[in-house]
Amino acid sequence: MQNNRLERQLQFILEIDKLKLILRQTLLTDGSRRENSAEHSWHLAMMAILLAEYAPTQIDVLRVIKMLLVHDLVEIDAGDTFCYDVQSNENKAMREAEAANRLFGLLPEDQGVELRNLWEEFEAQETGEARFATALDRLQPFLHNQHTKGGTWQIHGITREQVQRRMQPIEEGAPLIWPFVQKVMEDCVEAGYLRANTET
Amino acid sequence: MQNNRLERQLQFILEIDKLKLILRQTLLTDGSRRENSAEHSWHLAMMAILLAEYAPTQIDVLRVIKMLLVHDLVEIDAGDTFCYDVQSNENKAMREAEAANRLFGLLPEDQGVELRNLWEEFEAQETGEARFATALDRLQPFLHNQHTKGGTWQIHGITREQVQRRMQPIEEGAPLIWPFVQKVMEDCVEAGYLRANTET
Repeated sequence: MQNNRLERQLQFILEIDKLKLILRQTLLTDGSRRENSAEHSWHLAMMAILLAEYAPTQIDVLRVIKMLLVHDLVEIDAGDTFCYDVQSNENKAMREAEAANRLFGLLPEDQGVELRNLWEEFEAQETGEARFATALDRLQPFLHNQHTKGGTWQIHGITREQVQRRMQPIEEGAPLIWPFVQKVMEDCVEAGYLRANTET
Repeated sequence: MQNNRLERQLQFILEIDKLKLILRQTLLTDGSRRENSAEHSWHLAMMAILLAEYAPTQIDVLRVIKMLLVHDLVEIDAGDTFCYDVQSNENKAMREAEAANRLFGLLPEDQGVELRNLWEEFEAQETGEARFATALDRLQPFLHNQHTKGGTWQIHGITREQVQRRMQPIEEGAPLIWPFVQKVMEDCVEAGYLRANTET
């Protein structure tokens, strides 16, 4: 029945408000506080609109935007897993799959399936859309770290080698932006924002 | 030149990070803090994906989402104007037009024009997309107020009459949701979350 459908949709809409409480490691560009996953998702969707021209193939921008808007929802239950935390990343997939079951299960079936498919497409990294979305998801905190004099890199003593590996998907997902990323990484090492290597 | 174009795009992307610092009157559904305009925009874009079926006419969902993602950007310079604050609303249009000039002017011209057009379309309320987007922009804080036992309504002593007027665009922009809004408003008055009228 129509009313029940609307109720489920609104219940989900209220539930995902919790994404605003999930804190990421990234700082805002003014350094005042950590970013939350909802505002991060908004920022990425804006980047998709503005940077679509750098995707290597013709991409469906609407699908990229939708993917970015939903890609972190599972963190409502699973929390944000810091990308350089090896231990937490071990059971990340399982925790997130359980979160997806619960969250997308709140919706009417057709919409639950649509959103879950978007999330799975993002995770699988097999389409041009998913690879471009991931490139943006890597680029945004990179820019924030550059503009907060090393922000998260400084706090956690991250090395250039780690960042290089983390940024690698940009080379394939948004190849025209890759030379810029390489250049900024050099600059950040030179400025002392990023440790050159693993030496202690 | 290509590089200059990318630089302008990235400068804009870094600039709009400031939207995360603009606080609205609305509380998060757990009542813990006020919502900011970036996470609010993300929430509305999610609502557009899920509630598009309630628009009265065939709408271009991508345009609605883009419009919602950019509709509050001018607040970076102009601030968030509380909808029930008569005085601040008097010079709102002028403050926001100046903000639009500066912000969209950061972008390469083609993209500046595209985003400005989206913002102006939203403001003008002449297309089905703009009217649907506004309906969502009204519905979201309404739901938050319902779920925080009157939240902003309580803090500012807002009356049912004021909320009724504020919600009115939902009747045209998302008519199938309007009866639900009417019903919730009744419930909120009954529960004491919302003052019945202007009597003191």
